[in-house]
Amino acid sequence: MFDEATTVRPGERPDEWLVDVRHELTIVNGHPNGGYLLALLGRAGLAALDEPGRHVVSATVAYLAAPTVGPAVVETTVQRHGRTASQVRTVLMQDGRPTVEAQLIVAGLADAEPDWGAVGPPEMPDEAECLATGGRRPEVAEDPGFPPPPITKVVQVAYDPATRGWMEGRPSGVGEIRAWIRFVDGRHWDPLSLLLAVDATPPATFDIAFTGWVPTLSLTAYIRAAPAPGPLQLRFRVGQIVDGRVDETLDLWDSRGRLVAQSTQLAAIRLP
Amino acid sequence: MFDEATTVRPGERPDEWLVDVRHELTIVNGHPNGGYLLALLGRAGLAALDEPGRHVVSATVAYLAAPTVGPAVVETTVQRHGRTASQVRTVLMQDGRPTVEAQLIVAGLADAEPDWGAVGPPEMPDEAECLATGGRRPEVAEDPGFPPPPITKVVQVAYDPATRGWMEGRPSGVGEIRAWIRFVDGRHWDPLSLLLAVDATPPATFDIAFTGWVPTLSLTAYIRAAPAPGPLQLRFRVGQIVDGRVDETLDLWDSRGRLVAQSTQLAAIRLP
Repeated sequence: MFDEATTVRPGERPDEWLVDVRHELTIVNGHPNGGYLLALLGRAGLAALDEPGRHVVSATVAYLAAPTVGPAVVETTVQRHGRTASQVRTVLMQDGRPTVEAQLIVAGLADAEPDWGAVGPPEMPDEAECLATGGRRPEVAEDPGFPPPPITKVVQVAYDPATRGWMEGRPSGVGEIRAWIRFVDGRHWDPLSLLLAVDATPPATFDIAFTGWVPTLSLTAYIRAAPAPGPLQLRFRVGQIVDGRVDETLDLWDSRGRLVAQSTQLAAIRLP
Repeated sequence: MFDEATTVRPGERPDEWLVDVRHELTIVNGHPNGGYLLALLGRAGLAALDEPGRHVVSATVAYLAAPTVGPAVVETTVQRHGRTASQVRTVLMQDGRPTVEAQLIVAGLADAEPDWGAVGPPEMPDEAECLATGGRRPEVAEDPGFPPPPITKVVQVAYDPATRGWMEGRPSGVGEIRAWIRFVDGRHWDPLSLLLAVDATPPATFDIAFTGWVPTLSLTAYIRAAPAPGPLQLRFRVGQIVDGRVDETLDLWDSRGRLVAQSTQLAAIRLP
């Protein structure tokens, strides 16, 4: 499903790519998931650079207008074909206007052990236990008046029970969400789909206050290693909330316990 | 000096700004400091948006080619005039080609206490003690064959003695640099100049291995609050080194101990 939903086809001009923003990867009210759009832009950027064997290793995304589902065009601007790293700018155009823009760095990506600073995954129950104890997203699925977001049929997020109290109106106040995340259809994670995984969960601020939507202003992701098969471990933490904005950081580890992706974002928040 | 070095004048077209990349803010070999260039682009972006009272609150910069000193043009693309936040893309053009690009988010910035997650500055000696114990940058100034980088005459960095062993060939291995930072001419910090401060020091990786240059691939800065007068406290930390790349995070606190800016960067590194 992920591969189908991120397919890019050459457009009329060499810097134009035809895509279809799919309903299956929306959250509430038909809004496409941000991580999905980032992966879509990543795939278009890779197509534009055409450097086989390289991957997106850094991506910064800005939201310019509300993205929607349906056929769309990604415009790419190759900025540099570099010996060790290349750069490309990608813009999702919908109804003739830019909605999402991502600045990408593309380079080789080894399946390597860290040379320094290996950080292991957080302590948390096994995936099966997280699922068995009601950690499956979303609890709201049990309310027939509030159907589960479409993306939950594509990406399974199994929450650490200790960090899911916010689903039942009891945020822990710690500002941290931990979970196991995998594709429902069994697809393995790879460098491209990590761009989805860095922004596929509700905001970590829900563990402080279950507010309205917390729109991302800017998100930056670094892909650090090619992930091994199996689910990813995810830790999403709130930094500081001040002046109506919050910074949040997310880390992902693969099934070998290797840190494979990191993201930082600045989002707007309205506390009650 | 900072204000003079970041002056932007209207160019021929409305989206063109004339700047002068100054030698006074270079590091070694005439390379302009990255934080300086970010502040310069920030000022051009603010001029293009022309929304008085707003500041750059998020900036992501990508280096496309080696920037140089001298007269140059900044091209700006206003992407959104928003009710709560605006967006502008800025590109430093030198000899007709883009060298540095920054994606900026511009918004109001209060002098506010955090609502959640206030993180205080690290424990470290007073600024006077850092200066008195040889914490002044750079020690290399004492070597007549290696003159101090020009930027050290503009920005004074007083290192915590515990984190400056790398200057004498004894990196601590912790991967953390702490310092006090201020303008030599007494200018106060403000939201714009924080963009300089987030990238005005040598790489934190020097505290692990004193390698050759550690070029930034992508740097993202968030400006969180307007700083109070007085020096800033700086903490620069290494995350993980893997596959020839490293992530580093930097935090800045003002003289009231308030977190005013944060940055994350991905850089290329070649370990010995």
